[in-house]
Amino acid sequence: MAHRIAVIAGDGIGTEVMPEGIRALEAAAKRFNIPLEFTTFEFGSCDYYLEHGSMLPDDWFEQLKGFDALFYGAVGWPDKVPDHISLWGSLLQFRRRFDQYINLRPCKLMPGIKSPLAGREPGDIDFYVVRENTEGEYSSIGGKMFEGTEREIVLQETVMSRTGIDRVLKYAFDLAQTRPRKKLTSATKSNGISITMPYWDERVAEMANSYPEIAVDKFHIDILTANFVLHPDWFDVVVGSNLFGDILSDLGPACTGTIGIAPSANINPEGNFPSLFEPVHGSAPDIAGKGIANPIGQIWSGAMMLEHLGYQEAGEAMVTAIEAVLSDGNSQALTRDIGGQGSTESLGKAIAERI
Amino acid sequence: MAHRIAVIAGDGIGTEVMPEGIRALEAAAKRFNIPLEFTTFEFGSCDYYLEHGSMLPDDWFEQLKGFDALFYGAVGWPDKVPDHISLWGSLLQFRRRFDQYINLRPCKLMPGIKSPLAGREPGDIDFYVVRENTEGEYSSIGGKMFEGTEREIVLQETVMSRTGIDRVLKYAFDLAQTRPRKKLTSATKSNGISITMPYWDERVAEMANSYPEIAVDKFHIDILTANFVLHPDWFDVVVGSNLFGDILSDLGPACTGTIGIAPSANINPEGNFPSLFEPVHGSAPDIAGKGIANPIGQIWSGAMMLEHLGYQEAGEAMVTAIEAVLSDGNSQALTRDIGGQGSTESLGKAIAERI
Ligand SMILES: CC(C)[C@H](C(=O)O)[C@@H](O)C(=O)O
Ligand SMILES: CC(C)[C@H](C(=O)O)[C@@H](O)C(=O)O
Repeated sequence: MAHRIAVIAGDGIGTEVMPEGIRALEAAAKRFNIPLEFTTFEFGSCDYYLEHGSMLPDDWFEQLKGFDALFYGAVGWPDKVPDHISLWGSLLQFRRRFDQYINLRPCKLMPGIKSPLAGREPGDIDFYVVRENTEGEYSSIGGKMFEGTEREIVLQETVMSRTGIDRVLKYAFDLAQTRPRKKLTSATKSNGISITMPYWDERVAEMANSYPEIAVDKFHIDILTANFVLHPDWFDVVVGSNLFGDILSDLGPACTGTIGIAPSANINPEGNFPSLFEPVHGSAPDIAGKGIANPIGQIWSGAMMLEHLGYQEAGEAMVTAIEAVLSDGNSQALTRDIGGQGSTESLGKAIAERI
Repeated sequence: MAHRIAVIAGDGIGTEVMPEGIRALEAAAKRFNIPLEFTTFEFGSCDYYLEHGSMLPDDWFEQLKGFDALFYGAVGWPDKVPDHISLWGSLLQFRRRFDQYINLRPCKLMPGIKSPLAGREPGDIDFYVVRENTEGEYSSIGGKMFEGTEREIVLQETVMSRTGIDRVLKYAFDLAQTRPRKKLTSATKSNGISITMPYWDERVAEMANSYPEIAVDKFHIDILTANFVLHPDWFDVVVGSNLFGDILSDLGPACTGTIGIAPSANINPEGNFPSLFEPVHGSAPDIAGKGIANPIGQIWSGAMMLEHLGYQEAGEAMVTAIEAVLSDGNSQALTRDIGGQGSTESLGKAIAERI
């Protein structure tokens, strides 16, 4: 029985990097004999919105829920549809309705990729950000009052639940346990955000009791972002709320120079619903249509998808192929953002061949 | 008539760097003939809390409101008092009750201070973070329900008002107008935080109409933190909400290597209430009591205070003295965090002498 993958390319460079993601997955499927079956959907893009007045059809949940995974490109094109409409109408729906409560993002110095930090070498930085992906600061409760007057006021409620916090913490602690350093860092801001964040801290302290072998520390988000720059080698597994995880999982890859190529997994660990795999980068309207977008984020996300489906070795082989092509440094293959003269396709093909 | 300065040293290294802050201010006062009068208060520290059961006396507002400025060290000592109690009971009270709605923090590469970023030189990075300092995510509305059960839930309301947003934006635009590059960057997250942040964006767009000569851009906070690391030279004046400003004003100084020495001003621009000047660093319990804390943040905050009181030249002379002592690189004077073998006092004295 084939693994059924729903493919949603989305907007902008999403549509350009997606074919390379699939090319690499097909190469891995062939080598490791993995039965994959791709089904492409047009919805989940701003063009779909312009035609249909919504980002997704009414029955999207029914259409997608039976798939084994969703392979996503990038969504958003602010000139066509405001971001909060396109995102809340697609990606954020998937995360919530498919209860993908883990957002997992590796931050890793890669060979051939220049880190903006002074004196850091591959091996120095290698950690995961585990982000709560369904609640917290990304809330749909709130509104506006005294509209259009001087007294205008807007409110938005952050919502955190014990269930929501504990399950992401458990995932993060379990992940830390698989790592050699067995270290977990919690992102907080309990000195300023005085209701939700002290509660987050309490749950971390409680959960830590069940994991005596894990070394736990915490930092307020302000100094934690500083420490990502100053001491990225301190980190192993970093866990944060929806917003803090969002910030840290862009900042982390920025510190490793991999913001344009980092992958992410939106995971429903129980497998009740499909998980979703997407590059960290967005749809990049500024470079869309030129065939120069770097496809590594999409390919690396594909590797995370294979690992999630149980093919650890195949996923690792894909990452190894990426690293090998980066190490080679063949400028005909590499895209411009990483110093080459190649295209989305040339880099995608080089990686697929390596696999 | 002397300018009356209320001095609150607070906790930990706050009490150690404060004398050096005053020493430098007295040197500047002497040279520029500025009448300053310091009055020291014991409250606003965790020790005060342990004795009195609150961080401040009931009549703190009456006691302090007549001063021309507050010169603050650092507050917080988590082993004695939880941070959210000590901070909400002191610093955050001052900011709110004295309506210090601007938090201003320079991010500047200084001579002799190593930036963690590769290949950046003094002059490359020089911007301000302007932070909303009274509302937003730092809210006192919210609570907990189903306490102690599996269904436990916590809520905290972000509150933004047109008044609150517009006045910080106005300050930031006005500041941008005094700068050669005339550039303003807004921190948002309107793609995810879907109620308050689109409103923030609207107000920025509206305010921009009144400042046609300012170049305005905006980034979502996640990619903005990444850009602080990747392109710190892009920024001139960066404006953000209470939380985003908090994060950016630690991350910015981290990128310039100045996190331990950066100053900050909590300003009530109308002068209805005293403004408050404090180093960005905290009370640092880990190094407190050793006499090794770097006093530059306190001294630089003093410089911002003099400028606020109208003594531009004196403030600049203090910063020039800091830069000169850093350039000298005399290891007997410098503290350990910046490569010296000196003490809080030796560095404070060296700077005071220069002034
Ligand atoms: C101590 C804390 C409450 C405070 C804040 O978050 O405002 C600090 O980080 C700051 O930036 O002044
Ligand atoms: C596009 C946006 C809503 C999204 C988020 O904030 O979750 C993105 O930044 C991400 O990290 O996947």
